[in-house]
Amino acid sequence: MKTHHLIEALSRFQSSLYQKDFLLTWEKSHDDLMVILEVAAILKAMREKNISPKVFDSGLAVSNFRDNSTRTRFSFASAANMLGLAVQDLDEEKSQISHGETVRETASMISFLSDFIGIRDDMYLGEGNKYMCEVAAALDEGFAEGVLPVRPGVINLQCDMDHPTQSMADLMHLKQQFGSLEALRGKKIVMSWAYSPSYGKPLSVPQGIIALMSRFGMHIELAYPEGYGLIPDITELSEKQAQKSGGSFTISHSMADAMKDADIVYPKSWAPYHIMEQRTQMLMNGDKAGLKELEQQCLSNNARFKDWEYNAAKMKLTKNQDALYMHCLPADISGVSCKEGEVNADVFERYRIRTYMEAGYKPYIIAAMMFAQRFENPAGMLNQLIERNRNRVIC
Amino acid sequence: MKTHHLIEALSRFQSSLYQKDFLLTWEKSHDDLMVILEVAAILKAMREKNISPKVFDSGLAVSNFRDNSTRTRFSFASAANMLGLAVQDLDEEKSQISHGETVRETASMISFLSDFIGIRDDMYLGEGNKYMCEVAAALDEGFAEGVLPVRPGVINLQCDMDHPTQSMADLMHLKQQFGSLEALRGKKIVMSWAYSPSYGKPLSVPQGIIALMSRFGMHIELAYPEGYGLIPDITELSEKQAQKSGGSFTISHSMADAMKDADIVYPKSWAPYHIMEQRTQMLMNGDKAGLKELEQQCLSNNARFKDWEYNAAKMKLTKNQDALYMHCLPADISGVSCKEGEVNADVFERYRIRTYMEAGYKPYIIAAMMFAQRFENPAGMLNQLIERNRNRVIC
Amino acid sequence: MKTHHLIEALSRFQSSLYQKDFLLTWEKSHDDLMVILEVAAILKAMREKNISPKVFDSGLAVSNFRDNSTRTRFSFASAANMLGLAVQDLDEEKSQISHGETVRETASMISFLSDFIGIRDDMYLGEGNKYMCEVAAALDEGFAEGVLPVRPGVINLQCDMDHPTQSMADLMHLKQQFGSLEALRGKKIVMSWAYSPSYGKPLSVPQGIIALMSRFGMHIELAYPEGYGLIPDITELSEKQAQKSGGSFTISHSMADAMKDADIVYPKSWAPYHIMEQRTQMLMNGDKAGLKELEQQCLSNNARFKDWEYNAAKMKLTKNQDALYMHCLPADISGVSCKEGEVNADVFERYRIRTYMEAGYKPYIIAAMMFAQRFENPAGMLNQLIERNRNRVIC
Repeated sequence: MKTHHLIEALSRFQSSLYQKDFLLTWEKSHDDLMVILEVAAILKAMREKNISPKVFDSGLAVSNFRDNSTRTRFSFASAANMLGLAVQDLDEEKSQISHGETVRETASMISFLSDFIGIRDDMYLGEGNKYMCEVAAALDEGFAEGVLPVRPGVINLQCDMDHPTQSMADLMHLKQQFGSLEALRGKKIVMSWAYSPSYGKPLSVPQGIIALMSRFGMHIELAYPEGYGLIPDITELSEKQAQKSGGSFTISHSMADAMKDADIVYPKSWAPYHIMEQRTQMLMNGDKAGLKELEQQCLSNNARFKDWEYNAAKMKLTKNQDALYMHCLPADISGVSCKEGEVNADVFERYRIRTYMEAGYKPYIIAAMMFAQRFENPAGMLNQLIERNRNRVIC
Repeated sequence: MKTHHLIEALSRFQSSLYQKDFLLTWEKSHDDLMVILEVAAILKAMREKNISPKVFDSGLAVSNFRDNSTRTRFSFASAANMLGLAVQDLDEEKSQISHGETVRETASMISFLSDFIGIRDDMYLGEGNKYMCEVAAALDEGFAEGVLPVRPGVINLQCDMDHPTQSMADLMHLKQQFGSLEALRGKKIVMSWAYSPSYGKPLSVPQGIIALMSRFGMHIELAYPEGYGLIPDITELSEKQAQKSGGSFTISHSMADAMKDADIVYPKSWAPYHIMEQRTQMLMNGDKAGLKELEQQCLSNNARFKDWEYNAAKMKLTKNQDALYMHCLPADISGVSCKEGEVNADVFERYRIRTYMEAGYKPYIIAAMMFAQRFENPAGMLNQLIERNRNRVIC
Repeated sequence: MKTHHLIEALSRFQSSLYQKDFLLTWEKSHDDLMVILEVAAILKAMREKNISPKVFDSGLAVSNFRDNSTRTRFSFASAANMLGLAVQDLDEEKSQISHGETVRETASMISFLSDFIGIRDDMYLGEGNKYMCEVAAALDEGFAEGVLPVRPGVINLQCDMDHPTQSMADLMHLKQQFGSLEALRGKKIVMSWAYSPSYGKPLSVPQGIIALMSRFGMHIELAYPEGYGLIPDITELSEKQAQKSGGSFTISHSMADAMKDADIVYPKSWAPYHIMEQRTQMLMNGDKAGLKELEQQCLSNNARFKDWEYNAAKMKLTKNQDALYMHCLPADISGVSCKEGEVNADVFERYRIRTYMEAGYKPYIIAAMMFAQRFENPAGMLNQLIERNRNRVIC
């Protein structure tokens, strides 16, 4: 049985995810990442075989979206539902920065009977991960003091630094597309900035991609117009990891140059790091005039780089003129969702279904994060579920 | 056992609903409609006997309300819940018209682990059904390409053309009130426009009523002030169906005349077809001034027909002075919810409880639509559930 | 086994809660309150032992929040989920006063397959309880007329008069902190007004506290600046109850005086009764200018009582300088959530974890209210669940 082989593969890895939050991929060991990928694959296979992975009879999964989301919201809801949890949204005022007592108290108040808290907080550089850590500390205290009967797991649904449910889904997609993680060794992946007529897109996707993909022996090329750098610490970390894993890490400032011989391309817009830093400061100071001006500045600066569109000409430079195109969606498609954007419409159309598949791994990745947080021996528990053989849909 | 008799009745009909969306009643065969009615009746009987019809261990039912709703929202939630699905709302900006890539992509993104998508999109003539068909096509593609593990069923929760969950609930109510569908043959039903101090009410209810009720040998009388016609294609279709089923179809322009000898009356306001067409055009062109003017025009035109109120005098004209009054609710009740409205307060009060009962069929109709979409042999599956005999509430 | 002892204790009380709404604690007998406390304690113990109390296979619990809420919303969701119900929010326009046909109709429309309706309506004096009673009457009618297959239970999640899920959670906390209800006899509890820089806080918490705690032989001291009285009927009721139960009831107008030798203190801001009455009238008349002026008046009046802060000096006056501090949260903490507020930061910090525990009883209290409404013999049913021994989380 296919699922049994998958469980065998899983049992070769040592999970240290039990009772731990999933905030940043670089805080996790190689084995941890493998466990997530394998559990996700098993859950997906079980779904296809109509075997229910329901492990909770009841319980809540809290979603706290401090920024808009459709696909991650549905992925989180699907993951929670798959395991037997009901989703309860925490409706805070959107986009506010709050810390201290309010965070500490709210974290407890929503957690008395909750098993997981998924948080998106990606608007302010220096704030998202910090907020999640505060929530986590509050939950630690609440559990230690006997306020909470279980310690709910925190799952990062996108912060200012990382977007682990996205990057892990992307990795699962790459594994599937290339046949194995081994097959990724020596492949060239280009994480490239791309033009978009919008402003202030988070840095967490490109950062998440370079920080994760650099661990698998790939040649990472990070391309962006000068001034559009990412958080320096994460760039450095990625470089070190790439070297250690037998790959390489290069930064370039020409999209076309970067695309040469690429096996995988990920063209996506983001805001420059230093702009996002200024923006956070202005937001904290309530400097509306400054923000307005910064936006104008930023948009007109972006407009200088409209040629950073991934199109047929650039595609032709890639390996076999057919590098795997990836995107976290929605993409800014030229002539479709905007006049000029990140990607040419024909090129996007060629890879469109594969971007949907890429997105389709996310619910399983999130469910796997929940599963590994809750069960010390995921392989054993999955075996138990397969033996239980409960149908998801009656038949 | 009563449910066994109901299942026997059900098994006489040949369902072609398996794996099909439910968008318009006139796309469905007579047997299909019978299957929905019978399954709904069985689910209702099971509820009364505390037998659970839960067929899904987990799974999502997506609700996409592009217009406000309370009762249909609750009916959809109840139906999904009854069968074991969790509802996940898709929060799009309300009332926007969107097509193409956005629709196609979103349809996939919300469907990775979804079993049904219920859509209300009734604001713009020419748009609602079109939107639902685009979603359906995207789901077809997603399923064919292996993006989606199952093809979620689409259920029309009201579009610009039809409101099938309403009209089918209404039909179920009529069947219960008159004892059988056979008993409806030769009965006169009046679908009448009625005055309301509001503007832009959808045409889907009157259209849904005439297009469905004309299939059961009834004499349909459609009454409205000149200029308040429905979509011509649907009026024509209803006329043909009425003739074919052994009934008749008449249009009149006097509420009082229409009510004579009526067995059933359905007085309800709607906006004129040609106004709704202009409105859609203006909305698409962003013509705010035009819209403002159109609203004024429309309201003052409505005001000429304040005598189109269903009241005691008109009730006296009906069969035994006691035609069954129907409404999809909420009704504009004169002196209660507005100064002058669709129906006199005393008349409404006389039939109030029956309008509640009418509404009470909707959750079961929606659940039946889901059930028939998902199971090839609904009778067999219902038998299995009755044999399983799981209690909804422990006892 | 501990749960067996709890069930034994429970079975000593005669519940009259079956099929009854829970609107005001003073409408309930002593035994009724004991049943809620005992069922809540058993449900909590079951959670700790990973035994599922799921009694519903499916069904809806409707939440109708006519005022904002985070903690009660989560408590209600947790309670519903624990018992197997899905929460469906009723999104009415916030803060509107509506009665009559709209209420009657909506109550039925949301209840076809609902088991409970939780309502928060605390904004307008004279309106909240009235609204809940109207909903209850509509449900009675709907059930009697056969519109509703079951009579959903109504649970008051805070009205203008009482906040029973809060006060009962508070009582459960006191029972736990002092070891038993018996141990509360002769204890002094101070329900004190406290300064807050905000305006229009409901009276339901202090009213709920004095009306409930006065039934257990405690010495109640109600302290507030002159002019900040509560609804007179509830104050009188509390006084009578206190005398009858062997305690006492005093009103004072000095926070410091009140705190002397207190065992328990509950310092919390509220708006004066007569102001809330004026406010309701102005809201009903749409008197915006009047409301604006009233707010100013009220805030400046509040500002005269900034010394009504619970701080170290006042704490020192209490029994052993360590009275149990209680709050329904969030508290206005001086220097933390506002410049000057209800409580000093150091004092709050000392009791902070205990206020979290206090809040943590609420989900179980609400679940107990649901449980006792639905099962005639709660002890028997709980025994059955413990024997069933279904795990909440697989293990």
